[in-house]
Amino acid sequence: MTSPIAIRRLNAADQDFARHLDHLLSWESVSDDAVNQRVLDIIKAVRERGDAAVVEFTKQFDGLDVASMADLILPRERLELALTRITPEQRSALEKAAERVRLYHERQKQDSWSYTEADGTVLGQKVTPLDRAGLYVPGGKASYPSSVLMNAIPAKVAGVPEVVMVVPTPRGEINEIVLAAACIAGVDRVFTIGGAQAVAALAYGTESVPPVDKIVGPGNIYVATAKRHVFGKVGIDMIAGPSEILVVCDGQTDPDWIAMDLFSQAEHDEDAQAILVSPDAAFLDRVAASIAKLLPTLERETIARTSMEGRGALILVADMAQAIEVANRIAPEHLELSVENPEQYLPQIRHAGAIFMGRYTAEALGDYCAGPNHVLPTSGTARYSSPLGVYDFQKRSSIIHCSAEGASELGKVASVLARGESLTAHARSAEYRIKP
Amino acid sequence: MTSPIAIRRLNAADQDFARHLDHLLSWESVSDDAVNQRVLDIIKAVRERGDAAVVEFTKQFDGLDVASMADLILPRERLELALTRITPEQRSALEKAAERVRLYHERQKQDSWSYTEADGTVLGQKVTPLDRAGLYVPGGKASYPSSVLMNAIPAKVAGVPEVVMVVPTPRGEINEIVLAAACIAGVDRVFTIGGAQAVAALAYGTESVPPVDKIVGPGNIYVATAKRHVFGKVGIDMIAGPSEILVVCDGQTDPDWIAMDLFSQAEHDEDAQAILVSPDAAFLDRVAASIAKLLPTLERETIARTSMEGRGALILVADMAQAIEVANRIAPEHLELSVENPEQYLPQIRHAGAIFMGRYTAEALGDYCAGPNHVLPTSGTARYSSPLGVYDFQKRSSIIHCSAEGASELGKVASVLARGESLTAHARSAEYRIKP
Repeated sequence: MTSPIAIRRLNAADQDFARHLDHLLSWESVSDDAVNQRVLDIIKAVRERGDAAVVEFTKQFDGLDVASMADLILPRERLELALTRITPEQRSALEKAAERVRLYHERQKQDSWSYTEADGTVLGQKVTPLDRAGLYVPGGKASYPSSVLMNAIPAKVAGVPEVVMVVPTPRGEINEIVLAAACIAGVDRVFTIGGAQAVAALAYGTESVPPVDKIVGPGNIYVATAKRHVFGKVGIDMIAGPSEILVVCDGQTDPDWIAMDLFSQAEHDEDAQAILVSPDAAFLDRVAASIAKLLPTLERETIARTSMEGRGALILVADMAQAIEVANRIAPEHLELSVENPEQYLPQIRHAGAIFMGRYTAEALGDYCAGPNHVLPTSGTARYSSPLGVYDFQKRSSIIHCSAEGASELGKVASVLARGESLTAHARSAEYRIKP
Repeated sequence: MTSPIAIRRLNAADQDFARHLDHLLSWESVSDDAVNQRVLDIIKAVRERGDAAVVEFTKQFDGLDVASMADLILPRERLELALTRITPEQRSALEKAAERVRLYHERQKQDSWSYTEADGTVLGQKVTPLDRAGLYVPGGKASYPSSVLMNAIPAKVAGVPEVVMVVPTPRGEINEIVLAAACIAGVDRVFTIGGAQAVAALAYGTESVPPVDKIVGPGNIYVATAKRHVFGKVGIDMIAGPSEILVVCDGQTDPDWIAMDLFSQAEHDEDAQAILVSPDAAFLDRVAASIAKLLPTLERETIARTSMEGRGALILVADMAQAIEVANRIAPEHLELSVENPEQYLPQIRHAGAIFMGRYTAEALGDYCAGPNHVLPTSGTARYSSPLGVYDFQKRSSIIHCSAEGASELGKVASVLARGESLTAHARSAEYRIKP
C-alpha cells in the first residue's frame, strides 16, 4: 500500500512566484572538508608513488586482490570478448546508437582557416585535436554504457589519437555492456581503477597509466572533487549537478506520456528535478492523476517519489509566452516542448542544454540514440555553457604571419599602444620591424 | 653600474635535458588560506548586503570617499569624454587595433545548423550569445587598454547584448586610455569597483550591478581566487599563470631583434618566462651578447633581469625537428617561429596559444593589433585550451525533433539500452512512442 504523492503546485500569476521558483531551483553542492582532504591525500600519494599507490587504493576501496598494475589493465581483446557476452539485441542497439551519435557529432568538427590581407599578411586559426583524453566511467549501479558512447565518440570524431578509459570494478564486478560500448566507441586502453586515485593517475600519469590532457565523464563526490583539484594540470568537463527536465505542454499530449517523461528524470536520483509548465490548469490535474496512478508501477518508485515530492513541481502559466519566459529563467538541462508546432517557439528560447521538440520526442530518445550528446549543462549553467561536443576535444592556435609591409604598419600602431601602457620593450620590439 | 646577466643554457643532447626542462617549466600557483578566507568573506558580504557591502569595501580597499553606489557608476558620456582626453595618435591607434580585432573575430562566429533525416526527424544545434558578460579590468599600473579591446570585442561580435565592465580606481586614479578603449569596444556599462567585491557583484548581482553569465579578464590574486569561487554560478575564462614566450630561431634573425622579443615577455613581471631555442650554438652566444648589451637600456630593466635570470633559458638543439619537439613539449602561450619558410613547420606544431611566423612577426604585434586575441592559454594549458574568442561568448543547445516514424524506430533502440541500465521509466517513456 503506497501513500498518495504530494507534488508542489505553483502559479506564475502569484505575487511570490519568482521567489518560490528561485527556492525550487536553488542548488548548491556542499564542499565537505573531510572529502577534500582525503582527495588531496590520494592525489599526493599517486603523484609520489605512482602505480604502487593506485594498486593500494584499489585494494582498499574496491576490495580487489591484485598484485600489481598489470592486473588492472584490460587488453583490447577483453573488450571484444564483451561484445560476444551481451545479447545480439543489445549489441545491435549499441551499434545503432553509436552510429547516430557519430553522424551527429561529425557536424561539430571545426576546421582550420586563414585569410591573406592585401599586403601579404596571413591571419588564421589552426584547429588540432588533443593528444590524449581520459574517460571516467563509474562502476557498480551507476555504470552506464550510454555514457561511454557519449563521452568517447566525440573525442574520436575530433581525432584524438588515444582515448584512455578508467572504470572501477568493485569486488570484481565487471559490466559487460560497458566494455562492449567501449569497444564499439573505439576506446584505446582500459584500466579497471576508479575514484580519486584514477583521476590522479590520468592527470599526472604513473608508470602504467599515461597522463592525459583532459578528463571527462561523471563520477561520485570523490571523483568530482578530484577533477576540481587536477583542473589546470589537465582540462575537465563541467562538474555536473543533479539532472533536470522542464516539460512545457500545451495540454494536448497524453498525460501518461508526460508523467512518464517526468519520471524518466526523477528515477535518476533523489535530487533530480522534474518540472511541468502548462497554461492549462485542467491538464495539470490530469498529469497529477497520471503521476499518482503510474508511480506505484515504477521499478525505481522510491527514488522517483522522493525526487518528485522534494524537487518536482507543476506550474500554471497564463499562456505559452509566459511558459517560454519560465523556461529561459530556468535554463534547463533538458527542455521538452510537448506542443503543437514547437518551431514557432524556438527563436524565443535562449537557454537550454537540449531542446526536445514535439510530442514524440521523449527525452529518453535523446539520452540514448537520437544523436546529440546526453552530457548537458545542469543547474542553470546552460546560460553560459554547451553540451559536451567535438569542440571539447579540439583546441585552437592563432596564426599570425606578417609580411615586411604588414609588420611595418602594425609596428606603428603597436608602438603607440605599448608606450601608452609603459611597456617599452614591447614598443621597441615592434619598432625594429618599422621600415625606415 | 649593472652586473652582468647570467642566463641558463641547456643542451637538448644532455642526458638530463628532459628533467632540466621540466624543472624550468614547473609552475604551481600557491593557494593561500588567508586569501581564500578573506575572499569567501567578501563574497558572502556582497551576497547578503549588496550595494552597501560593495561601497564599504571600495572605501576600505580603494581609499575612495563615496556615499553610495551612484558615485561608482560611469555613464556612457564619461567614456566619450575620455576619447577627447587622449592624444589623437592614441585614439587612432586604438581604433585601428579595434577594427583589426573585430575583423579577425568575425571569422570565429558560429552559426546554428540542422539537418533532416529521411523519416522527417530533424537534428541540429542552436547557437545563442550569452545574455550578459562581465569584464574585469585591473586598476593602477597593470591597467591595460589593449586588454579591454581583447576581452570586450569578442563578446560584442558574439552578439552579447550587454557587456558590463568593472575597473577599480584606487585613490581616484582613472586611466583615460582604458575608458577610451571601453568606449571604442562598445562596453555598455562601467562600474568603478574592483577586487573580490567586484567579482561577487558581477556573479550574484546587487541593487545596482546586474548579474552576468560569465566573467572574463585578468586580475590579482584576490580577483583570481574570487573567480574560482564563483565558477559554477557564472562561467569564467581561464585563471592565467605568468605569461611566456618560446622563440625558435634558425640563427638568421638579427640577435638584437630576438633579444628584444624575449624582453617584451620578460618585462611583464618577475615570473614571466622567455626561452630561445636554436640549432645554432654561435647564434645563442650572439643573442646572449645582445641581451647583455640591451638589458641596461630597458625602462623595466629590474623586472626583465629577474625574469630572464630566474626563468629564462637559451636552449641548443640538434636541428629544427628537435626544436619543434621542444615546442610541443612546452606548449607555449606564444610561439615565435623566427625562421625561413616557417610554413613548413606548421603541420608538426600541435600545441601553442598563438604562433608568430617569420622574422617580422614580433609577438608585440599580436599583443596589440594584428587581430587575434592576446588572452591565451599559459603554463602548458595550450595542450587542451584555446585563445579567448567569440566561441567563449556563445553557447549551443542541441535540437531534436522526431517525426512519429523516427520516434518509433529510436524508441526501440532506447528501450533496449535503458533496460540494460535498469532505467525502466526511461524505457517506458520511449516505448510509449513505439507504433503498435
